[in-house]
Amino acid sequence: MPRLAYLGPEGTFTEEALRLLDPTAERLPCANVPAALNAARSGEADGAVVPLENSIEGAITTTLDEFAWGEPLLITAELLLPVQFSLLARPGTEIPHIKRVYTHPAAITQCRAFITREVPDAVVVAAPSTAAAAQEVSLPGSPYDAAIAARIAGEHYGLVELATDIGDRSDTVTRFVRVARPGPLPEPTGSDRTTLVVFLADDHPGALLEMLTEFSVRGVNLTRIESRPTGDGIGRYFFHFDFEGHVADARVGEALAGLHRICGEVRFLGSYPRADGIAPQIKRGTSDSEFAEAGGWLARVRAGQV
Amino acid sequence: MPRLAYLGPEGTFTEEALRLLDPTAERLPCANVPAALNAARSGEADGAVVPLENSIEGAITTTLDEFAWGEPLLITAELLLPVQFSLLARPGTEIPHIKRVYTHPAAITQCRAFITREVPDAVVVAAPSTAAAAQEVSLPGSPYDAAIAARIAGEHYGLVELATDIGDRSDTVTRFVRVARPGPLPEPTGSDRTTLVVFLADDHPGALLEMLTEFSVRGVNLTRIESRPTGDGIGRYFFHFDFEGHVADARVGEALAGLHRICGEVRFLGSYPRADGIAPQIKRGTSDSEFAEAGGWLARVRAGQV
Amino acid sequence: MPRLAYLGPEGTFTEEALRLLDPTAERLPCANVPAALNAARSGEADGAVVPLENSIEGAITTTLDEFAWGEPLLITAELLLPVQFSLLARPGTEIPHIKRVYTHPAAITQCRAFITREVPDAVVVAAPSTAAAAQEVSLPGSPYDAAIAARIAGEHYGLVELATDIGDRSDTVTRFVRVARPGPLPEPTGSDRTTLVVFLADDHPGALLEMLTEFSVRGVNLTRIESRPTGDGIGRYFFHFDFEGHVADARVGEALAGLHRICGEVRFLGSYPRADGIAPQIKRGTSDSEFAEAGGWLARVRAGQV
Amino acid sequence: MPRLAYLGPEGTFTEEALRLLDPTAERLPCANVPAALNAARSGEADGAVVPLENSIEGAITTTLDEFAWGEPLLITAELLLPVQFSLLARPGTEIPHIKRVYTHPAAITQCRAFITREVPDAVVVAAPSTAAAAQEVSLPGSPYDAAIAARIAGEHYGLVELATDIGDRSDTVTRFVRVARPGPLPEPTGSDRTTLVVFLADDHPGALLEMLTEFSVRGVNLTRIESRPTGDGIGRYFFHFDFEGHVADARVGEALAGLHRICGEVRFLGSYPRADGIAPQIKRGTSDSEFAEAGGWLARVRAGQV
Repeated sequence: MPRLAYLGPEGTFTEEALRLLDPTAERLPCANVPAALNAARSGEADGAVVPLENSIEGAITTTLDEFAWGEPLLITAELLLPVQFSLLARPGTEIPHIKRVYTHPAAITQCRAFITREVPDAVVVAAPSTAAAAQEVSLPGSPYDAAIAARIAGEHYGLVELATDIGDRSDTVTRFVRVARPGPLPEPTGSDRTTLVVFLADDHPGALLEMLTEFSVRGVNLTRIESRPTGDGIGRYFFHFDFEGHVADARVGEALAGLHRICGEVRFLGSYPRADGIAPQIKRGTSDSEFAEAGGWLARVRAGQV
Repeated sequence: MPRLAYLGPEGTFTEEALRLLDPTAERLPCANVPAALNAARSGEADGAVVPLENSIEGAITTTLDEFAWGEPLLITAELLLPVQFSLLARPGTEIPHIKRVYTHPAAITQCRAFITREVPDAVVVAAPSTAAAAQEVSLPGSPYDAAIAARIAGEHYGLVELATDIGDRSDTVTRFVRVARPGPLPEPTGSDRTTLVVFLADDHPGALLEMLTEFSVRGVNLTRIESRPTGDGIGRYFFHFDFEGHVADARVGEALAGLHRICGEVRFLGSYPRADGIAPQIKRGTSDSEFAEAGGWLARVRAGQV
Repeated sequence: MPRLAYLGPEGTFTEEALRLLDPTAERLPCANVPAALNAARSGEADGAVVPLENSIEGAITTTLDEFAWGEPLLITAELLLPVQFSLLARPGTEIPHIKRVYTHPAAITQCRAFITREVPDAVVVAAPSTAAAAQEVSLPGSPYDAAIAARIAGEHYGLVELATDIGDRSDTVTRFVRVARPGPLPEPTGSDRTTLVVFLADDHPGALLEMLTEFSVRGVNLTRIESRPTGDGIGRYFFHFDFEGHVADARVGEALAGLHRICGEVRFLGSYPRADGIAPQIKRGTSDSEFAEAGGWLARVRAGQV
Repeated sequence: MPRLAYLGPEGTFTEEALRLLDPTAERLPCANVPAALNAARSGEADGAVVPLENSIEGAITTTLDEFAWGEPLLITAELLLPVQFSLLARPGTEIPHIKRVYTHPAAITQCRAFITREVPDAVVVAAPSTAAAAQEVSLPGSPYDAAIAARIAGEHYGLVELATDIGDRSDTVTRFVRVARPGPLPEPTGSDRTTLVVFLADDHPGALLEMLTEFSVRGVNLTRIESRPTGDGIGRYFFHFDFEGHVADARVGEALAGLHRICGEVRFLGSYPRADGIAPQIKRGTSDSEFAEAGGWLARVRAGQV
């Protein structure tokens, strides 16, 4: 039974993701993303589950930067979790009584219509996380009357659910990843994703176009690009790439080696099954068998057997 | 004397940026970036100053999303402001007395070495902004002993500066922009930057490569790319681009028209002088005079005058 | 009734092409391609008809070089003529009597199977043109017993057709063009072709890729590329391009202007209806109306009307 | 002592090239390029020397088509031979006596200024080759007074040289290649050239751009491109490519394998030392050692050793 660290406290969406990724795992809540990843790095845990991006908020930059700069870890799985916010309160509280609401700023943004309509006069205060908000509200002497958080947080902290799925959009999704210390990669499944961090060798004009060409010429489709500052001043960035396929695929391997040759540093973050199960369209000439056939042909050419 | 809204309260780095961009402007502090931009949109202010990106933290996503989705505004100037944090306290406080420090989480991250070394036993609590932290600490009954904030915040709130420039890196910079309601653009200066938001027409493989090719074929160099979620689910993004040159430049204009033709929507966010004064390298064949000469040649060709 | 010069003598495939292009034209046979083109240039003729390429032999390099280096002319029409060779002899000659065959070397190549099978013992001698061969054979004292030429040549020179369509391939085609002195271009028809000669500015690596990108980024499809030596040594070439569309089309015009900006010299050789009547596939974003709409948008952007 | 077939008769420029490529070889003159290549194919000769292109006339299309369609041969060497024409006549002839000149049409074109100036009244008749012209003029009863040919032809046929280097341009060069039956390739020298024939898989728009991108993304510079008709109608072409480097080079091998994957057929025509001794500029990231290093890195990544 593996032990998995996660972004706590208990009752976070991350815990929900962890339970779906591995229902049997022992769970180790951590105060923040770096702490969860460090638990995996140190061996205190066998791995970790952290959020990577949200369909409204965008990238979780702490996660991106930890993956880029911290001790290497490998992504071994991903999960897309619909984000459903609930209005949670101590038993006995009713909506008209609510004067002070506590929740994470992202939840404030995403539940704006509900708040305006249902608790228009309440003061809404920013909490460090939705689960922490629920935990605080559960304290008898709390100055807050309600929290906006995941239903799971209400279960953890003994709160009642006054309203369900109160986000402005019902289709908000967060993408979580499970990571482990470097080791054997998940086997290719035919519907895989690979994640990289790429630092430029020198920041010349056209460098990004060159990187994308390394992918496109081998028929590898990007699914995400994120730029992050290197820390060396405005205008200096590195990149996170997600793309279709597994590094064991010939086309992906050649694209990665190409990037490695032209870039300053390429950090491999893992090849793992796609949560959406979508299989890539393999462009003519880029299947493993076509790569193998071309390799055989090249060997014969080099031997003068034409 | 223009009236400029900005991300307040008084004493923020944004106020410092505003003072440098326009020392004579009347200043209107606002609670957050959307409020500052809305003040400019509504006419309550003549413009606004907001942060766009930081060399450590990366993009200010609230600003990006406001520029993409809110009522149109145009960037008319940019400023690069070195970020220098100070340790601020009520008069009479000395460093050994400090038990509780209040500041914005970004400042916690960026001053980690100082905190660990100088106030290792202090509890550090997250504040909504560095200026708000300073304001809070200035209250006689505040539970906090010190704030980490801009020196200007100390001046505003009557705090003394116990330590100066306490960030781990001395070269951290934030890029601020001044915006105004749409109207005549700043004149080209020869060292300009243009900012766009681009939504894809359809998210086909290679769409990003096609967009970059529209720039590169006209010799226009990108200086920044940011992807942001469209809100329609993981895997759907739009893009912010900064690039060299002014939309009045022929090469920039043709590249923008090209993007407009192949993309779903292109929102122009302004052409304005670069804060760093760097002039672009004009690639052979892409100067205004070469465009004009080619246009004259094409007209003659179309008239059969070859 | 226009007067058209052509590659003579009477009875050439070029005469046949001319008759199809303009049945009513007065015909002026010339000794070679340069002579025919010079007749058009000087005003001795109103235009000229010359071969440009053949589906077996490839480009007619004399024509290519005349178009590149001679006084400018414009292509105003093209014609695809099936090449059908006949075995022609003086009346009374029968195939078994044929000991010496006279024809152009291209016809020797293209009728090899017939020659081997039907006149295996004949000596085959190279003539300057198929029509000249027919003319020679028509002379009573000719040392040759038969010519391989166009049927039209037999009619001209009073020869009988001993065998018809004797080429190894029945689908051989020659492309002819009609040219005129520079003047108003043929109107766009929706199925047009444009022909260019392009000299490099400097022969750097990637120059050809750059030229092709100027086409592809505007959705203009190449239909032919020919390289020719500049005369300045092995390794120095210029290019003939044929591509879909008319220079009056916005996408074609912008591509041409782009080439003009980055190349040493672009010589426009004409926009004219395609002989095959194929209409181009207009790539998304490259129609005239999309160019016009983008131009209007750009004008508004430049005026700050966003 | 190898036996080399060549484009005869004795006295051709090709013989001169053969003597320079291998002074000790036994020489087998052949009637035309296909015959010379067939002698090499059949084993009657150990190899052959044929012209490939001329700096004025362009490609020798017979050679290109033989290389593309005939039994495979490999180019093992190339030579750049300055083309110097001489005016040759039987002993006793003087320039004022010359009434009829015999030579190859290419020589007529290239010596036009000399002919116009020195023998303006002479009739100039087309011969199958310059050497054949010299041979004919050497016959006592020849109707021709002089030949224009290589000096070596005069030596062969006992003619005297009335004028030397009479071409309009003194820098005309022909490129010859030596070919052999398939077998071990010449070793890489650091200044090599590789030649290919490439047939498209399907003739879609952008196919040529895709092929060039396979080269450019691996930093392989093209030095020549020739299009030739496939024979299947106007608008259907295949391509000859020359480019820098040896197929044993990692970057060249990967580019070839890439072409092989996306094209209908790639025929390798050889890697051989460049006659001009120019070493390629190796683009960052494309040296053999960088390819090897990237391959090692990829192997570690695939093993999860990051």
